[in-house]
This record gives sequence, structure tokens and C-alpha cells, in this order.
Amino acid sequence: MFTLDLSLGDRSYPIYIGQELLDRSDLFERHITSQQVMVITNETIAPLYLDRLVTKLGKFDVTSVVLSDGEEFKTLDTVSLIFDELLRNRFSRNCTLIALGGGVIGDIVGFAAACYQRGVAFIQVPTTLLAQVDSSVGGKTGVNHPRGKNMIGAFYQPKCVISDTNVFETLDDRQFSAGLAEVIKYGLIRDDEFFEWLEVNIVALMQREPSALAYAIQRSCLNKAEVVAEDELESGIRAILNLGHTFGHAIESGVGYGKILHGEAVAIGTCQAADLSCRLGLLKTTEMQRIETIFEQASLPTMPPYEMETKQYLDLMAVDKKNIDGKIHLILLTKLGSAKLPCSVALNQLEATLNEYGRN
Amino acid sequence: MFTLDLSLGDRSYPIYIGQELLDRSDLFERHITSQQVMVITNETIAPLYLDRLVTKLGKFDVTSVVLSDGEEFKTLDTVSLIFDELLRNRFSRNCTLIALGGGVIGDIVGFAAACYQRGVAFIQVPTTLLAQVDSSVGGKTGVNHPRGKNMIGAFYQPKCVISDTNVFETLDDRQFSAGLAEVIKYGLIRDDEFFEWLEVNIVALMQREPSALAYAIQRSCLNKAEVVAEDELESGIRAILNLGHTFGHAIESGVGYGKILHGEAVAIGTCQAADLSCRLGLLKTTEMQRIETIFEQASLPTMPPYEMETKQYLDLMAVDKKNIDGKIHLILLTKLGSAKLPCSVALNQLEATLNEYGRN
Repeated sequence: MFTLDLSLGDRSYPIYIGQELLDRSDLFERHITSQQVMVITNETIAPLYLDRLVTKLGKFDVTSVVLSDGEEFKTLDTVSLIFDELLRNRFSRNCTLIALGGGVIGDIVGFAAACYQRGVAFIQVPTTLLAQVDSSVGGKTGVNHPRGKNMIGAFYQPKCVISDTNVFETLDDRQFSAGLAEVIKYGLIRDDEFFEWLEVNIVALMQREPSALAYAIQRSCLNKAEVVAEDELESGIRAILNLGHTFGHAIESGVGYGKILHGEAVAIGTCQAADLSCRLGLLKTTEMQRIETIFEQASLPTMPPYEMETKQYLDLMAVDKKNIDGKIHLILLTKLGSAKLPCSVALNQLEATLNEYGRN
Repeated sequence: MFTLDLSLGDRSYPIYIGQELLDRSDLFERHITSQQVMVITNETIAPLYLDRLVTKLGKFDVTSVVLSDGEEFKTLDTVSLIFDELLRNRFSRNCTLIALGGGVIGDIVGFAAACYQRGVAFIQVPTTLLAQVDSSVGGKTGVNHPRGKNMIGAFYQPKCVISDTNVFETLDDRQFSAGLAEVIKYGLIRDDEFFEWLEVNIVALMQREPSALAYAIQRSCLNKAEVVAEDELESGIRAILNLGHTFGHAIESGVGYGKILHGEAVAIGTCQAADLSCRLGLLKTTEMQRIETIFEQASLPTMPPYEMETKQYLDLMAVDKKNIDGKIHLILLTKLGSAKLPCSVALNQLEATLNEYGRN
């Protein structure tokens, strides 16, 4: 087991990464200080891991909640449903929630934990590659609004993250590739050595070779933990983790939540950000090509599923969280392994990129 | 103008108390760092103060939202409506929300600010006595759930509190008395000198004599600020501010949100807590009588509006935020000016109090 500590003063917590961690009662018991425990998962994960986890929590009074699966259920209504269950079962403020699932479950449950009785303890048990390398780490929680992704939420840290790498045995190829989009992102924004390692090892990763996979997860979490420790509430550097996300969120909203995976949208959005970086003379065309190549090798899309109109992109991007007084701000790349803080760009340059990937 | 600083590290903020502060553009400008500002109020307050405030915010792009008035609208649906308005108007994460109203408006807007884009700036402009002496100070935000009051929320501090004491000119008697319940509470839980001052000055306060009122507001805010600075997230001493609130919240839920004012329910609940404290031998009967007398002088109820069943009380109290693993914990008085941290009590003693105030 590899343990990584996320340093956030009195909100610090460990991230455990390793094999068969779902069976490690001791890890759960170390971080649960209540009798009341609610495990929240979805209908896809429940048949695979719910009973196994609940059995290991024999010391506690466990209630389980199984939600529908999919980004389209990442709404305030679903959070409200969790509140109903918590109150129906008279859960006290000292209770613990466990998020067993991918990024959608982690975001929903984290937000429910942040708001129930003004904050209760929660534990992240991510079951997808994307959740293990990105969304379970760093305390971003929240839900979508029809007008914008992740528009409602909280910064709220878990008590720990327990990442069992054996869960990949049941992860489908599309979900696995989606996770690689965020892995590749860390290389692009701040770790050129890791990006080069990924170029060499992408085939091994796609074959889910255990040692390559373990290394990629650990190095991704390390990158994420360093950035979050420096800027928990995203008042500065943390924004670079959003490379490709402004475009990506617009695509997710535009095509409809649940019709494209978050990681897929991020891959496309990263290509768009790279394209714009090239247009602005920040990035070389050869570097842009290396980005497209590695996404293709990871079976990720580099073009949107259909041609969204430039106007629709601009409308959707107008509510991004990095915007200032309503003006679009984007993360751009200056080379492989280095990103700029959010900046506004000339509208005609942005439109040129959007026209390239859609239609005007 | 009296300025009180609430010390909370990088979340510290000033509480301004004085006459005609609604016209002090300089105070607002000092704390608004964005161009986009949303003033959120209700249909009762809007005709009185909304235009006046908006006129003073001429430097900013101001959008106003007018909500229905009443505790029954303190719901997740109302918060969702605020999100709709923010997104429809493309409000960015650097925007500022202003809560213009009583405790309900402050709680709703504070929670919306806590969750919109994972947290935006907000300013409290309390327009009732209760909001000025209690709910606007300390960062407790949130909404009700049908099964329990304030069950969904966040600890989220404003940038400042601007308390214009001239608003009492338009405050009706019932709302004014409700505010006095929380004023009296500060005397009871930690400030015996203030309680004795209140016993002497209650008639002047009921006549809204300006200097008595100014003193009562300042001393109440001082008490609140000291407790909150010591224990922002209510892991200990802050819970004493909940004297009478476990009973009170049960009454509010039981008779129906909006049918009794929060301060009225707190007055009744404080009598119930005092009754229980007497039964447990902690408080003298003469002290209990002084509590009832001052509430009566403040035109506050000391008995519930109708006889709730003991079982209903217990059901509603079972979801209080001070409970631990589902067990009821209450704040009790040991004398006038001193309260105990939340403790569990023998069920037969609690039932004896509930039977006294309701029916079994």
C-alpha cells in the first residue's frame, strides 16, 4: 500500500492506494468515529462491491443508499434524496458518509456531507480510474445545474481516500480511457517528465499492466496533492488543473449530461486549449500533435461528438467558474509540462478555435 | 457607528452597528470587490428598503431578486431559485451577494453564497432585531427540511455585517419581541450582568428607547462574536447558543414553519430547558420564575401555542444537530448567566417537562 498525505493543516488527510483495500476494515475503522455510517453508491457499483464493503463495516450501524448511475443524476434533487434518507434514519451530525463509486458519486456524496447539518464526516472510496487520480482528491464537491457543470458545490475535504486498484478489473474500457485523460493532464500542466513517461508507457497502461498503472496513479495523486496543498480554495495555481475543462464542460452541457464521459470531454477540451495556445503562439504545432497522438493512443476522442455551434460554446463557457465579471478566462499551455494561470483571450482567436472544432 | 470585529483568522470581518447605515455607500464599497452584485430580499422588505439600497450601489452592476416572505420558504427550492437567477444573469465566482432582510433571508442567501460556484462573497444587511443580534453574526447559513429545522446548510462567513438600527422604525411588535428572545438568551447563557441589566431595562427596550436598544444590540453581538471566535464550527462551547433551540425547533417544525416566529419558539423552548434544569436540580425555581417574567415583559410566549404530544416532541428532537449517534443532547442552565455543554438526560425527566408543556 502506498500512502500519500494531503497537507491542509487541520483538514489534512491520507490517500491510500493499493490492492484489495476494500477489505481493509482497519483503514475504515481508523477514520470512522461514529456509530452511524451511510454507504452511498450507484446501481452499477452496488452489485460489484456494496455487500463486500458493508460486511467489512460490521462494527458500525450501516445504512446503504443506491442511486441511479450517470452524470445526468448529479443534481440538487439527488442530493436532496440523500438528505431525506439521512433524516429518515435519524443520522446525527457525528455520522460518517462513505462515497463508493466514480467521480459522480464522490462529488454528490461529498456535497451532501458538506451540507448535512452544516457538515459531517465522509470517506472517498473511488472505483474508477478518473476518481482515483482526480476527483476523489482535493475536496471539490458539487452538482450540475442545467446551465452549467459543477455550478453548485463546496470545497469540503474527506477524512481519507481509499483507492483499491483492483477495481479496474471491473472497469469498462471507455471509463478506463476517460481516467487517462486526467492522468495525461498532470503531465501537460506541470510534469514534463511524467508526460514523457506516459508517451513511453501508454501501451502498457492501456493493457492495464499493474506496475505501470500503480505508478501512474501515484504520480497523478502526488501532482494533485501538491497543487491542492498550495491552493485549497483555487484562488490561484489550482486553476491549472482545469486545463481543457472550460471547453470540456461546455461540451458536456451542450451534448447533454451523461451522453459523454467527463474524461472524454476533457480530452477534446484539452485539444481545443492546445489549438488556441498554438494560435496565440504559446505552443508549437509539434507539441500539439504529441498531445493528439497520446489521446488517440489512449482511445480518447480529440474532436467533439457532433459539431456544436460557436455561439452555443460561448454561451455555455460564459458561466465557467474561472470567469471574472462574466468574462471567459482559460488555461493555456506554454509548452508540454507548463500551463498559464487563467487569462482572457481575444474573442476572434477563441472563435477561430471553436470554428475549427464546430461550426459558426 | 459602533464597529465590532469578529476574529476568525483570514475569515475575520467587521460588524457595523449604527443609524442610517443603509445609506453608507462607503461601507458597501469597502467590502465589494466585484462589478456584479445581487441584492436578495423579500416582498415585505423590498418596498421599504430595496430601492434605497440599490441607489447607493450605483458603482456596481446590480441585479435584485425578491423572494416570498416567511420561514416556510426557507427551503432548498428557494436556494435553487437563487442559483437560477445567478446563472441566468451569468454571475461569476468573483460576484457579491447581499442579504437584505431578517434571519430567513440571511440564512438562505448565506447558504446560496456558500454553494454557488463553491463559494462567493456575501454581505449581511439584517433588517430585524433577531437578525442583527443573532443570525447575521457567526456564519451559520442554511435551510429547513420537512423533518428538521436548519438541517441543510454550511458554516460560511460574510465579508461584513451592516446593521442599520433605524430599520426598527418599520419592524412590527411581534418581530421586535422575537428578537428580544435571543437578546435575553445571551444574558442567560454567559452574561449574568447583562441579564440583570435587561431586567431593569426591559420596559425601555419594549418602548424601543434608542440608547437602551443600541446597548442591547452591541452587547448581544459582543457575546455572540466572543463565542463564535472561540469555536467557529461548533465543536464545543458554541453549542450553548442553542439554549432553548432543541425544544424551539421541534415546536417550529411541529406547528408548521411560518406559523410561529423563531424567537417565539426559542422563548418557549428556553422555559422548557429551564423547567428541565429545575427538575434536574441544576436551577432554582426562583431563577426559573425570573426567566418567565422577563419573557412575559417582552410580550413573548412561555407556553406552546397548542399542546403538542410528547411523542411528537421526541420524534422531532431526535434529529437535532447536537445529538450524538441519534441520542438527544440538550443545553441546560446551571444558574442565570451560566449554561452547560450539551448533555443527554434521563428520558423520564425529559418526558416530565414535555408532559408539563404538552400532553402524553
